Amino acid sequence: MNRARIDGRRLDLRHGRIDLTHGAGGRATAQLIAELFAPHFDRGDNVWLRQGNDQAIMPRPSGRLALSTDCHVVTPLFFPGGDIGTLAVNGTVNDLAMGGARPLYLSAGFILEEGLSLADLLRVVRSMAAAADAAGVQLVAGDTKVVERGKADGLFITTAGVGVVPDGVELDGACARPGDAVIVSGYLGDHGMAILSQREALGLDSPIESDCAALNGLVAHMLEHCPSLRLLRDPTRGGLANTLNELSQQSGVGMCINESTVPVRLAVRAACEFFGLDPLYLANEGKLVAVCAAADAAALVEAMRSHQLGRDAAVIGEVCADDHNFVRMTTTFGGERLLDWLHGEMLPRIC
Amino acid sequence: MNRARIDGRRLDLRHGRIDLTHGAGGRATAQLIAELFAPHFDRGDNVWLRQGNDQAIMPRPSGRLALSTDCHVVTPLFFPGGDIGTLAVNGTVNDLAMGGARPLYLSAGFILEEGLSLADLLRVVRSMAAAADAAGVQLVAGDTKVVERGKADGLFITTAGVGVVPDGVELDGACARPGDAVIVSGYLGDHGMAILSQREALGLDSPIESDCAALNGLVAHMLEHCPSLRLLRDPTRGGLANTLNELSQQSGVGMCINESTVPVRLAVRAACEFFGLDPLYLANEGKLVAVCAAADAAALVEAMRSHQLGRDAAVIGEVCADDHNFVRMTTTFGGERLLDWLHGEMLPRIC
Repeated sequence: MNRARIDGRRLDLRHGRIDLTHGAGGRATAQLIAELFAPHFDRGDNVWLRQGNDQAIMPRPSGRLALSTDCHVVTPLFFPGGDIGTLAVNGTVNDLAMGGARPLYLSAGFILEEGLSLADLLRVVRSMAAAADAAGVQLVAGDTKVVERGKADGLFITTAGVGVVPDGVELDGACARPGDAVIVSGYLGDHGMAILSQREALGLDSPIESDCAALNGLVAHMLEHCPSLRLLRDPTRGGLANTLNELSQQSGVGMCINESTVPVRLAVRAACEFFGLDPLYLANEGKLVAVCAAADAAALVEAMRSHQLGRDAAVIGEVCADDHNFVRMTTTFGGERLLDWLHGEMLPRIC
Repeated sequence: MNRARIDGRRLDLRHGRIDLTHGAGGRATAQLIAELFAPHFDRGDNVWLRQGNDQAIMPRPSGRLALSTDCHVVTPLFFPGGDIGTLAVNGTVNDLAMGGARPLYLSAGFILEEGLSLADLLRVVRSMAAAADAAGVQLVAGDTKVVERGKADGLFITTAGVGVVPDGVELDGACARPGDAVIVSGYLGDHGMAILSQREALGLDSPIESDCAALNGLVAHMLEHCPSLRLLRDPTRGGLANTLNELSQQSGVGMCINESTVPVRLAVRAACEFFGLDPLYLANEGKLVAVCAAADAAALVEAMRSHQLGRDAAVIGEVCADDHNFVRMTTTFGGERLLDWLHGEMLPRIC
């Protein structure tokens, strides 16, 4: 029996709504946890969440510790290919994986707006549980707060993730060296365009789907096949262009990219032309940029292509010496342009 | 030189405001990190944040791993005795400490409302840095998102914390046994009443201050002096009454409390009478409830009183056998009442 039940009634998961009592820490909070969160997160071999204390305690990890966090404020909450829940899990899993860490545990903080429908919350929680299962991580700790109507936008989720970095793995955004190859794992811009076309109600015949996915499996596969892997980064907010600028600055190098080798779907390219956007600045949620020694690039791309999430991997350019840390791109027409940092805000609340 | 600077101008930390570009992940985000966050969080021996990757990587920990998270949505952002920043650090530190963990690392996710003044954000960041120093933890990872004006309430902060539990320490909310002593570390209700009197602009001669503090030092001291310590919990949202109900249910016991032994300041008691509130349901942010074998209670209270944050510690009752898991209180007038779970919401957004 759930002793936290109020007047003996179950939560109405179909028509019910979040109210301020669900964030008060009393009986209503306990009921929300027992009837909505626990059935999805507290299952299988996840014995940690079940401890029911203010912290989860897990065994001593077997390697260096990795910690990462991401806030998620995407709008709309649901979009083709995912929702705020899949983003919240995969975003943090990927930030851990980019350091070569094996993601193990997640925490999730929910900030809910009074009036949020329990059905929407349940849908998001189900997505999170499925995404955690797919990534092989366990959600072990959480917190819920409720703010008054109009003081948040439905639902914000902040996840933090803990992982272990196996001995010998040393990936760092500062490790790119002139001559290295720059690789991407697949088509760019899908997530950003999926959100945008959903917002603008484009009504495409076949809607562009977000690429939202957990990359830790692909990364483990890459580490197995490429000992000279220097660094990984996922080109989320700001897209490929911004990520390459970050890495160039961090490594104290420049980069030269060939536009013709950068994979962008026709549908994304067409939608970008319609909106006047550049796909290289659009967010991705299931792609990565890798840098490795040039001699190993072909083998690495081949290994990536044998993994489902890397099947469209491609070498897109090389690292060069440049005191200005510029990212230059040879265009498909043979010209050259500078791929600058993202200026301003193209698409607010993309993740 | 900060290459992320826009048009070569520094952020105006006195008159500037957050806009959507600060959350876009591009140049403005980089500038916010470089000029506002980094000078306060990236300092001393905190070499982890400085890595500048999407995750922080730290040495292999020396014990079991503890993970906890808390969302902070307190209003107002600033109040006597603290602000949302001190709460965000101490709340998560305390959740780790209640499991007997030594807190090591924090992550922080900031959800900012467009229009938030940079001066307010800076004030909060300074508080967080000072609170982290005082607690001996390092903020190693963070994320910032910005939402449009009216879609959040100034500033929400979600922290997650990682700690290690030393071998031999086994605290668990399920471990209270009939006959055990129930102890609190000091005056109850200060935080809740500090927030409430700030909101209601009570204008007290000497304002009631929040008790917001990191309890990991006190906990380490208690563990040294009391091998029979069964469990710890901090009575935050829902106050002492709710915490005792949680623990009774988790341990499958009841509790009998003596009202006359429960420490509540005169000023808090008076303000509670004025508002018609019960101090035992008010939130605390620097207090803990401990349960230990009755034979060790006197020695534990003495040890707690020798620590600054436990100087008003007191035994307030005992654990009893009760299939209904009721918390009963003998009132100062000799009657008995049931201390029930918190119903409804007394004070929204108290933390």
